[in-house]
Amino acid sequence: MPTPIELRSDNAAGVAPEILAAVAAANAGSALAYGADEWTARLQHRVREVFEHADATAFPVVSGTAANALGLTALCPPWGSVLCHQSAHILNSECGATSMFGGGAVMRGLPGDGHLVSTEALAHAFATTRWGDNHHSQPAVLSLTSPTDYGTVYGPDHIAGLGELARSRGLRLHLDGARIANAIAALGCTPAELTWRAGVDVLSLGATKNGALSTDAIVSFDPAASEQLVYRLKRAGHVASKMRFQSVQLDAYLTDGLWLRLAARANASMARLAEGLGRLGVELVDPPAANMAFVRLDDVVQARLADDGLLFYGMGAGLARFVTSFQTTDHEVDEALRRIAAAKG
Amino acid sequence: MPTPIELRSDNAAGVAPEILAAVAAANAGSALAYGADEWTARLQHRVREVFEHADATAFPVVSGTAANALGLTALCPPWGSVLCHQSAHILNSECGATSMFGGGAVMRGLPGDGHLVSTEALAHAFATTRWGDNHHSQPAVLSLTSPTDYGTVYGPDHIAGLGELARSRGLRLHLDGARIANAIAALGCTPAELTWRAGVDVLSLGATKNGALSTDAIVSFDPAASEQLVYRLKRAGHVASKMRFQSVQLDAYLTDGLWLRLAARANASMARLAEGLGRLGVELVDPPAANMAFVRLDDVVQARLADDGLLFYGMGAGLARFVTSFQTTDHEVDEALRRIAAAKG
Amino acid sequence: MPTPIELRSDNAAGVAPEILAAVAAANAGSALAYGADEWTARLQHRVREVFEHADATAFPVVSGTAANALGLTALCPPWGSVLCHQSAHILNSECGATSMFGGGAVMRGLPGDGHLVSTEALAHAFATTRWGDNHHSQPAVLSLTSPTDYGTVYGPDHIAGLGELARSRGLRLHLDGARIANAIAALGCTPAELTWRAGVDVLSLGATKNGALSTDAIVSFDPAASEQLVYRLKRAGHVASKMRFQSVQLDAYLTDGLWLRLAARANASMARLAEGLGRLGVELVDPPAANMAFVRLDDVVQARLADDGLLFYGMGAGLARFVTSFQTTDHEVDEALRRIAAAKG
Amino acid sequence: MPTPIELRSDNAAGVAPEILAAVAAANAGSALAYGADEWTARLQHRVREVFEHADATAFPVVSGTAANALGLTALCPPWGSVLCHQSAHILNSECGATSMFGGGAVMRGLPGDGHLVSTEALAHAFATTRWGDNHHSQPAVLSLTSPTDYGTVYGPDHIAGLGELARSRGLRLHLDGARIANAIAALGCTPAELTWRAGVDVLSLGATKNGALSTDAIVSFDPAASEQLVYRLKRAGHVASKMRFQSVQLDAYLTDGLWLRLAARANASMARLAEGLGRLGVELVDPPAANMAFVRLDDVVQARLADDGLLFYGMGAGLARFVTSFQTTDHEVDEALRRIAAAKG
Repeated sequence: MPTPIELRSDNAAGVAPEILAAVAAANAGSALAYGADEWTARLQHRVREVFEHADATAFPVVSGTAANALGLTALCPPWGSVLCHQSAHILNSECGATSMFGGGAVMRGLPGDGHLVSTEALAHAFATTRWGDNHHSQPAVLSLTSPTDYGTVYGPDHIAGLGELARSRGLRLHLDGARIANAIAALGCTPAELTWRAGVDVLSLGATKNGALSTDAIVSFDPAASEQLVYRLKRAGHVASKMRFQSVQLDAYLTDGLWLRLAARANASMARLAEGLGRLGVELVDPPAANMAFVRLDDVVQARLADDGLLFYGMGAGLARFVTSFQTTDHEVDEALRRIAAAKG
Repeated sequence: MPTPIELRSDNAAGVAPEILAAVAAANAGSALAYGADEWTARLQHRVREVFEHADATAFPVVSGTAANALGLTALCPPWGSVLCHQSAHILNSECGATSMFGGGAVMRGLPGDGHLVSTEALAHAFATTRWGDNHHSQPAVLSLTSPTDYGTVYGPDHIAGLGELARSRGLRLHLDGARIANAIAALGCTPAELTWRAGVDVLSLGATKNGALSTDAIVSFDPAASEQLVYRLKRAGHVASKMRFQSVQLDAYLTDGLWLRLAARANASMARLAEGLGRLGVELVDPPAANMAFVRLDDVVQARLADDGLLFYGMGAGLARFVTSFQTTDHEVDEALRRIAAAKG
Repeated sequence: MPTPIELRSDNAAGVAPEILAAVAAANAGSALAYGADEWTARLQHRVREVFEHADATAFPVVSGTAANALGLTALCPPWGSVLCHQSAHILNSECGATSMFGGGAVMRGLPGDGHLVSTEALAHAFATTRWGDNHHSQPAVLSLTSPTDYGTVYGPDHIAGLGELARSRGLRLHLDGARIANAIAALGCTPAELTWRAGVDVLSLGATKNGALSTDAIVSFDPAASEQLVYRLKRAGHVASKMRFQSVQLDAYLTDGLWLRLAARANASMARLAEGLGRLGVELVDPPAANMAFVRLDDVVQARLADDGLLFYGMGAGLARFVTSFQTTDHEVDEALRRIAAAKG
Repeated sequence: MPTPIELRSDNAAGVAPEILAAVAAANAGSALAYGADEWTARLQHRVREVFEHADATAFPVVSGTAANALGLTALCPPWGSVLCHQSAHILNSECGATSMFGGGAVMRGLPGDGHLVSTEALAHAFATTRWGDNHHSQPAVLSLTSPTDYGTVYGPDHIAGLGELARSRGLRLHLDGARIANAIAALGCTPAELTWRAGVDVLSLGATKNGALSTDAIVSFDPAASEQLVYRLKRAGHVASKMRFQSVQLDAYLTDGLWLRLAARANASMARLAEGLGRLGVELVDPPAANMAFVRLDDVVQARLADDGLLFYGMGAGLARFVTSFQTTDHEVDEALRRIAAAKG
């Protein structure tokens, strides 16, 4: 069996050495639990510096689902609805977490090309809403995902435009940034430009897919939401007792641009892969904006590749998903291309 | 300022070297997310071996609150009540987590000396319950804590007796074992004797207070509860994507008795401290059964000790709490006793 | 201003004289609260007789939303999803009630012509479900509405076919029968044929739209669901203290076919209206199967009709909704047609 | 068997003739559903006039449990606690409704003589609260019941004093007024004095126990709570479609002092009964402040009375509960006394 090459998910990657070292370094002396420690204090400063926002507050949580669902419930009343793309993770892959934590808040999927909510779709949703009618969950939050689960990316202008339209009807703006570093690295914008400057109130800041050990985070730019989250997280069991070991991961992640370097590495591997696939005549569904690609590959070819140690997800109907991570090497990409070329015969 | 001595909480301790090493060792190669990895599979075998139960299933979660609240909701219908001691952590210190996750299940505090539910108190609760009356939340789970938040411990017979009484009225049995290793080490019983052999259906297995980095666990001995927990945890955001790094901590923790050695170390430090306090004429509220003591110390003495770098919790009214951890050394205990002697003057 | 003619909603109608008389008759002597009264006992016998089912149990509730949401949560775990037509009332017009009572259960809208779930749509939903994947709410209930909010009706065979497919994947079957009497009267089937014989586990039995004063009901054909509902209703505040006055309405409603006579009267008025509209060349979106019609009427004509005292709902885009009730008279229908003819000019 | 005399509960009484007549009178013509009718508009005016408060808003609901639980959740965040007497109905007899609707808000029972929260008990609760600690549900509402389930009554000064203390810590004030008319009639104060002038934000206005057919109400004096309730009630299934028939009951109830006359009638019957019991040497636990008494009667005597057609509740241990209603006649009271005298032998 040939050496496996991991292209299933960036979730399958390990921990960045810098982050593991930071965890080990934090294991010195005692520190109060539940966030009353110096590492957590440092994280708050780091987040404010990196996002250029004096009120930004980070809340470490153990998963993206927790970040999304709890972040959303700080913005959405129980009788509200969260508008999102119909392919959104919060709608399809979190087992109703937002509705549970949100006391029965519902999600409403909107269409849009490239898995991105379009301005037209949002305007149409507003036009078909029975505003002020208590029989009808009232739109309260617009939740965007960037990069999407399909590898496409919203630019700052797109987010800002949707955010402005959302605010005009009183909605708040949430960004599911499970892979936000990949988007920032791809777009070359600042973290602020892609978030609060574009109107984002609460961000799910992904870290585990990009090198962290055991933590993602909610970053709130809204002090009222932050105040709620202090309680909402505790009662959800998302306040780690030894929080220093969660905070230190995020602090290391955001320090000296590590997060963006890791993401740039994953993006570059994907670009190399995409270019190679193009040379091989393999069709990509969308040009990969970050570190994920969906490609058309005959199911027979997919089976051959699986036998050949290439780890990826077959999506059925001749579609395959490839994801690179910060650990993907050029050598692995080249070897993957070699195997694909061979499998195509 | 003298060197600080940490006696505030075992939560303030760090990570056991064996566990940190295991985490680092797991950072090799890629592994599927959400538990489909070899470390998580190994953990399941370990739990079954250590607890001598073929169906025992471990679910890593990031906090004891998550373990308690989610574990309880797998045993309690929304119209049920959870009976517990009136000083229980789930009742007083989890901000309603059980009621939230439980869809409005309520908690009912019972009295009992030494912070332990007495058989009489449970029998009285049953006698005053309006069984089958839909105006009244129906007792569905008895939740015990051992060691309690006050350092006292249930023996296996006490648990078994309460469990039998509970089962006679159809209740399930939950054990909040945030410090269960300290209880097992103190009692010298087996993990099985203190849990499922005494009737426990679901255990909150604490690990962070005793050397883990970022995880506690639910251990379910009931396959029906386990089946629910698969979904309940996901939608609560308690399924870590890189679960191998959580599972490996628990596996290392339970391997070759590490958890019990760490706990025995904490207990021994407390015994040394208690003995010394006795020599100094300091009154202990209860003889410390595990790694926690409440002692009578004049508030002026407490203030002097705080100035002198002894870290502990003043509880008001001349009461102080001391907690030892696996990191507490004999030297620290002796030095603490020296400072206490000096402060008493 | 001409005499108003009520065609907005059957909700706007009053109380059937037989039901008001029954309420007045029940106001004799004292009776225990919360259902321990002879009228409620009689209702249970009536429901079992009318539905030909020995375990059928009726639970009076004050609204169709309560009947739907509470009935569904007795069939659906919190991590489940309720499949329904994308135009269903439970999805669009109950402000998230099912998700709230269901602890975050979600609803998933399916397509289908005539506002009816098609077998193909259900099969497709099953094919695209990630069964057993805890990231994904698991289909647990199929909820059908008959008549739909658009006046179309499922026949017994359609329900039975969908029910069989649903059961093959472990789903339960719920029927939102806010206007079920109109469907039964239109189809000429028995209540049993349209409900449990077609696989229905829990029925929302509408009564207020068809002559009751203050109550609808859940009718459960599943003893396990009934047992849950005893508690679920109480804690939802849906157990009326003077329940005799709710039960007696339902008993009178179901006695000697009153419910079906009232519904047949509403249906006949609609048939007369539809026939007349046909003569006037007014297009109907679907042939009205029960007591509701959507018709194409120029907005200018709609405005004239409104000025002329015809009460109906303009749906925008040249669409108007007409609903007849048990109180609609032939004279009113004929007068409505006269005004429509005049408005069309 | 002698003619039964109903002294079990005012819930067992029937409907006041004035209210039944008002319902019948409202059954004329058609009216829009869900509260957009003239009777509901009239109710709002009535409530504002009777309570002398320009923003008072009434929400008809079908039970006191619904009124309490939904009213409380408009005042209490999910991480809040509701403080109440340890014998309160919301704590003991609503099957967790407040915790369910409140997203896991918890209730905390306080002591106090006569089943009344004392100022000392409230002060003590505040002193033992860990304010601002997210491990601990934060006191958010004080809920009082008057008359209590034990027949005792808070005067306006008592409520105002507790309300002031509660407000000093940021709590809101809720009044469970399931029998509020009996309290007002007994105290001779105005409705305003016992509610918002004493600091009450939201009132559960009982009506069914005192002559209504199928409705109680929430009366909100806080526009922000009212705005929430519009949505909270709908999604709880507590917005009746034919709301005119609920509103008209409440309007008739509050018109020309009917509610207070009915309550005064019940209170007078109780006073007559208490006086007679005194003459018979029967001990009353508390002097009955309204329409309920707990008396010491040997269990053998109770058994004789039950055989003799006197309907009351035996509470065990030689205690019996008697409740009068607006339908209790002087003749019935005298006959009850005669039977008690005979049973005592």
